[in-house]
Amino acid sequence: MRAREYGFVVGQVPTGPANAITDVPGVRVGHANAVPDHAGVTAVWPHAGDPWHDSYFCATAALNGAGELTSTQMIDEWGYEETPVFLTATSYVGSVYAGATRILTAREPRIGRDDVIIPVVGECDPSAWCDVREGPEPGEALVAEALDGARDGAVAEGQIGAGVGMETFGYAAGIGTSSRVVGAHTVGVLLLANYGLTEHFVLVGDPVGRTLAREAASSGEGSCLCLVATDAPLLPHQLRRLARRPFVGLARTGSYGSHGSGEIAFAWTTANLLPRDGADELGLRMLRDDPLSLLFAACAEAAEEAVLNALCAGRELRGYDGTVLRRFPAERFARA
Amino acid sequence: MRAREYGFVVGQVPTGPANAITDVPGVRVGHANAVPDHAGVTAVWPHAGDPWHDSYFCATAALNGAGELTSTQMIDEWGYEETPVFLTATSYVGSVYAGATRILTAREPRIGRDDVIIPVVGECDPSAWCDVREGPEPGEALVAEALDGARDGAVAEGQIGAGVGMETFGYAAGIGTSSRVVGAHTVGVLLLANYGLTEHFVLVGDPVGRTLAREAASSGEGSCLCLVATDAPLLPHQLRRLARRPFVGLARTGSYGSHGSGEIAFAWTTANLLPRDGADELGLRMLRDDPLSLLFAACAEAAEEAVLNALCAGRELRGYDGTVLRRFPAERFARA
Amino acid sequence: MRAREYGFVVGQVPTGPANAITDVPGVRVGHANAVPDHAGVTAVWPHAGDPWHDSYFCATAALNGAGELTSTQMIDEWGYEETPVFLTATSYVGSVYAGATRILTAREPRIGRDDVIIPVVGECDPSAWCDVREGPEPGEALVAEALDGARDGAVAEGQIGAGVGMETFGYAAGIGTSSRVVGAHTVGVLLLANYGLTEHFVLVGDPVGRTLAREAASSGEGSCLCLVATDAPLLPHQLRRLARRPFVGLARTGSYGSHGSGEIAFAWTTANLLPRDGADELGLRMLRDDPLSLLFAACAEAAEEAVLNALCAGRELRGYDGTVLRRFPAERFARA
Amino acid sequence: MRAREYGFVVGQVPTGPANAITDVPGVRVGHANAVPDHAGVTAVWPHAGDPWHDSYFCATAALNGAGELTSTQMIDEWGYEETPVFLTATSYVGSVYAGATRILTAREPRIGRDDVIIPVVGECDPSAWCDVREGPEPGEALVAEALDGARDGAVAEGQIGAGVGMETFGYAAGIGTSSRVVGAHTVGVLLLANYGLTEHFVLVGDPVGRTLAREAASSGEGSCLCLVATDAPLLPHQLRRLARRPFVGLARTGSYGSHGSGEIAFAWTTANLLPRDGADELGLRMLRDDPLSLLFAACAEAAEEAVLNALCAGRELRGYDGTVLRRFPAERFARA
Repeated sequence: MRAREYGFVVGQVPTGPANAITDVPGVRVGHANAVPDHAGVTAVWPHAGDPWHDSYFCATAALNGAGELTSTQMIDEWGYEETPVFLTATSYVGSVYAGATRILTAREPRIGRDDVIIPVVGECDPSAWCDVREGPEPGEALVAEALDGARDGAVAEGQIGAGVGMETFGYAAGIGTSSRVVGAHTVGVLLLANYGLTEHFVLVGDPVGRTLAREAASSGEGSCLCLVATDAPLLPHQLRRLARRPFVGLARTGSYGSHGSGEIAFAWTTANLLPRDGADELGLRMLRDDPLSLLFAACAEAAEEAVLNALCAGRELRGYDGTVLRRFPAERFARA
Repeated sequence: MRAREYGFVVGQVPTGPANAITDVPGVRVGHANAVPDHAGVTAVWPHAGDPWHDSYFCATAALNGAGELTSTQMIDEWGYEETPVFLTATSYVGSVYAGATRILTAREPRIGRDDVIIPVVGECDPSAWCDVREGPEPGEALVAEALDGARDGAVAEGQIGAGVGMETFGYAAGIGTSSRVVGAHTVGVLLLANYGLTEHFVLVGDPVGRTLAREAASSGEGSCLCLVATDAPLLPHQLRRLARRPFVGLARTGSYGSHGSGEIAFAWTTANLLPRDGADELGLRMLRDDPLSLLFAACAEAAEEAVLNALCAGRELRGYDGTVLRRFPAERFARA
Repeated sequence: MRAREYGFVVGQVPTGPANAITDVPGVRVGHANAVPDHAGVTAVWPHAGDPWHDSYFCATAALNGAGELTSTQMIDEWGYEETPVFLTATSYVGSVYAGATRILTAREPRIGRDDVIIPVVGECDPSAWCDVREGPEPGEALVAEALDGARDGAVAEGQIGAGVGMETFGYAAGIGTSSRVVGAHTVGVLLLANYGLTEHFVLVGDPVGRTLAREAASSGEGSCLCLVATDAPLLPHQLRRLARRPFVGLARTGSYGSHGSGEIAFAWTTANLLPRDGADELGLRMLRDDPLSLLFAACAEAAEEAVLNALCAGRELRGYDGTVLRRFPAERFARA
Repeated sequence: MRAREYGFVVGQVPTGPANAITDVPGVRVGHANAVPDHAGVTAVWPHAGDPWHDSYFCATAALNGAGELTSTQMIDEWGYEETPVFLTATSYVGSVYAGATRILTAREPRIGRDDVIIPVVGECDPSAWCDVREGPEPGEALVAEALDGARDGAVAEGQIGAGVGMETFGYAAGIGTSSRVVGAHTVGVLLLANYGLTEHFVLVGDPVGRTLAREAASSGEGSCLCLVATDAPLLPHQLRRLARRPFVGLARTGSYGSHGSGEIAFAWTTANLLPRDGADELGLRMLRDDPLSLLFAACAEAAEEAVLNALCAGRELRGYDGTVLRRFPAERFARA
């Protein structure tokens, strides 16, 4: 059951059909885990084509950047990216980066000849629950599985793919997604939710965390890596603005961007793709200001709901040391 | 009556004695208006001394930077400032900047000889209510009055100083302030609150704006200029982090950083002052990480409460075209 | 005589017809001074129309941001500007900002009603030579004179407009400009050159400053405010990249970005104008990567040559305390 | 033979004893290659201790950020790092990142338990000369070898470690280093030099590239990853400033930051170390402004000389396709 099925409705903007980042046409999500209860990989294809042949405008932002999002320098400089997006555990960023480089290189003969790639890999840290010293470390095969298994439509949420071992406000969380439709355009958010002290949790305006904190505690404050996709024709500097809006949604759930938190966002558009081999000048479309405000508000809503979806999807996880990461008892707070 | 007197209590961290930015020792606030119902000037002395002789570490941040905060380039480069801080209407930034330059130059014989100054002036736009084409424009005299009238202790809030003509969620707002005490340190926030559509207003978790929006509408979305002071010994890069936390509080009241909003913050510390004439090396103190998280959370709380204080203080204003900027009916929502 | 007439030829890319920023069609420059030997105002119209009705993509950058460029927050957020660009002495930024606000407001009835403006004002500090404590301070009339006197074609250089009192490598400098033509596009640079110790001066590769430093010394290190215009269809994130290239040219003349230097650039394009009243979506053109590299190299060349033009144009100035700011003896280094 | 032995003397500030980044006490450099003519790994210990136990203040900057420097988000947020620094080929960033994570985790039992690490890995692309599709890819063993082989004193330059396959201005380059002594402090630069068209090369002011370009051409424009170390007590915001100064040196050699160039710098100080387990407040030292200018100028000089050292050290390399990356004929330009 997802958040809306419990009556946790965030905001007033309508969702897309799958209420997921995949509502942005072309976006596909895949998960892979070597074993079910250990952090794996989530891969996201940013648009319907091959990002190496058609690069896509994108940008990053951070409320508190205590995490890793590789390729940040290049994204900031060029305003576009050339690879899919990967999420994993902090300790496996190198492994997934290496796996992605090998797979994408093997599949495209021009990589390593005409040009090289710098993949986008984001992370959160599940080491309170997964033994990242012992692994299994995700390798090339797992990266390929996530890439090749990526699908549109409904997205598996919670403790799956990169989401295993992720804890939010003291409960099992991980992957969460949601979308909003604003006129002709869609904005979708997918989070790797792994943040927050129980006492800070606000459930659609209700500070339930103050009560829940009496029952049990969170293991720490963690991070939240946010992906934002849209089909609105935005330019890179507009995507940088959009990339800040998931933090508005996180703030409403109780985040304040703790010192150690990687509240980092990566936003892109499927419009305005840049073909690798093309003319020196290109025609583009640009969305103007007023509809941009609506997208901002919609993005904040989708991020807040994605957190709740991650929590509602979270199954109980037995940690490597035997302690249990509890499932969020959504039914106790269900609204009619 | 302030927000707490209506039972609007934000968070759990204790406030300082005045629940105002002036709880940070040395910080003083002064307001001046040429006429009561027209936008004037608010001046803030950042510490107990003269900032030209003892410059202070500071930083800026923006959720949505569609506004003016002069001296941003220098603050970002040097990590410190040398003047008091001024707030006014957008259309009067030049006038206040010029007035501040003249006054500070006149009072310090070395300015314009040994060195020049770049004052910090922030703004919001009251032009829906104040006729900024006709004035009266604040000049040198008004800037001097605000500077010289600055006091510690309780701060006048609402439609005063730079706050006149400022509207938040459809109601008269303007100057609002609040503080929090975290161990040995205090963090104080002072806002120029001029943002938000009525329908988005969330009052300590309660989305009252949805109901209020049926009664009347806001004139537009506006901005919120945020000042953050602390006596915690932070370095400039830490102050840049702190400067992002008011946006967490704004988000909780309903802001999502609309396209035209200047949600811009300026944060400083009264610790670690830098004497103008001194040795090549200086000893400093630095607060470490864990208490920094507590300051972040406290700053978010103080910003949220400062908005409510601005709303609760707001008196009705008759605009230059005869329409009325309503007072927020706080008593309707009073909590026991 | 300009630098090329002395045989000081920078690089290999051809210049535009006027070898000035005005070679970018529509760009116009005007100077105004209350008295000839005191810092005044330089105004630049960024394109052939009215920037309030047709805003223009732009961006800023800094090698060392110890200066003022107003509106930086808004430019960084929106990627466009709505006013002409102004240069003046540091101490007169407020005065010029206020004057520009008043004039532009008076001329456009919708300003202060539908919207407000945040003008772009940059500066360098001539206080070693001009008595900025005593003035005359440039007011509204001087700002209007600079705006209304702006012309295309040849640009007066050196000790004129904002350039009076500006010293570079120990010699009278101030306004300098140059341009380059790259295929179908032009890039033009206009500097307010006021930086550098004599000993660091490199004249087209020749470290003549080491010799000249034995003759006399500079009064300090100062700043260099750089304007870059192009008609190439760049997006805001590309203009941010272009804005860094004047610093390459400055470095080649001997700058290293001293602590107190405002080496700040503002770059814009006359292509891709954004009409105020228009549809929600807009069609744009975008220049791709390879020609962008050529523009970068051309911009660096133009900046280096603009410095030399400022030096070659500089006339001797008698400072307010009677000492003399020397003219650069270009003829001693003339190349066949 | 190094650049000075050919009479290529950059600037006037004295060098340290080894004229290398290792002149900053505690800094150690190690190289490792699986085979001599294929890109390997260069590892740098940032100070005499273990950076996980004593983290170090640092910052990044970019003239043109078209490259990878992992951990950028965290460095920008926290202002400090916890791992050694690694350089390698673009295609091997993931591999080196993964290897570094495994080795550092294996050696410190608290990593992966108390906390996780985000290593700093920078790169340039040697794929014109090294077959990065076929490898050998550097793995954990090579990373360990570079780390464990790191030494102070003289640093091997040119085609070694990460430097193999690196081409600058059309000639074999790669690792280059230089240092400057400014009063009581040292600043050292180590570059991975892989940039520039032959025609742009300027040798200590002499545009020799224009002549050399008639003889042969470069394979492309490439990148330059810059490391800057100092023992001056700088704060993170000051290190961000210092990190921009290598670009001044690069500009003087002929770089203009081409579109595809990763001209990215990472700067740190060995002063002001932050012990992992310590009190909430810490005492620090801070260098003031005037000596900072001297450090900036010294850093620019060291970067320029490091490029020349890379070129002078470069041996001829036979590329994987049989073509030859030529050695720079330094002797032709030797100065008395």
